[in-house]
Amino acid sequence: MPQGLFAVNISEKFALFSDRWAPKIIGAFNDLHIKAAKLKGEFVWHSHADTDELFLVTKGSLIVHLRDATVTVNAGDFFVVSRGVAHMPVAEDEYEILLFEPAGTVNTGDAGGARTVTSEAWI
Amino acid sequence: MPQGLFAVNISEKFALFSDRWAPKIIGAFNDLHIKAAKLKGEFVWHSHADTDELFLVTKGSLIVHLRDATVTVNAGDFFVVSRGVAHMPVAEDEYEILLFEPAGTVNTGDAGGARTVTSEAWI
Repeated sequence: MPQGLFAVNISEKFALFSDRWAPKIIGAFNDLHIKAAKLKGEFVWHSHADTDELFLVTKGSLIVHLRDATVTVNAGDFFVVSRGVAHMPVAEDEYEILLFEPAGTVNTGDAGGARTVTSEAWI
Repeated sequence: MPQGLFAVNISEKFALFSDRWAPKIIGAFNDLHIKAAKLKGEFVWHSHADTDELFLVTKGSLIVHLRDATVTVNAGDFFVVSRGVAHMPVAEDEYEILLFEPAGTVNTGDAGGARTVTSEAWI
């Protein structure tokens, strides 16, 4: 549910869903949404022309492939992908992340395809 | 140091400093800074006319007094104070938080005073 005069417990939000590749909105400030997502395996190569994207890992390890580097983002770490930079997140085991990005940012960016989520809901 | 093609470990950043009431910049995306701060005791009543402010508590419990409510934000929780809303954070024990807010946001907002930090540095 949209936030109000209460704190949001991040673990409780992750306990509310089990579907992967379907980010849920758990908070908002200014023009940004904070989304919780559970992911496993390979995503798709994509980029976001108009925005940076922040990944904050809360469980597991996320590997972010970039064209010229590979960055490991462990639980308790965050990583910022700059706008326009192609990236592909991947992990063998399920991982949980918070995404900070402008409301309306499409998960697959310029790539589209089967993993595109067009309507993200608050939980 | 300013971020690059590496993940930022949040705990390691908190281990780099011990001074209270002096937020350090540990990340940036779009027009936002992510700041780490150690705090204890009462802050000052203030508001930010132009921006919401997100508190993500990583250690301890933060009490945020609002004019008509009091919100407890425990470790693992976040809380968003909307623009223009007067608030005063307070805690008996030291707590550690991440702040997400536009670069240049002054910690004391419209209140000013002794706890105002005018130049925040990257660590």
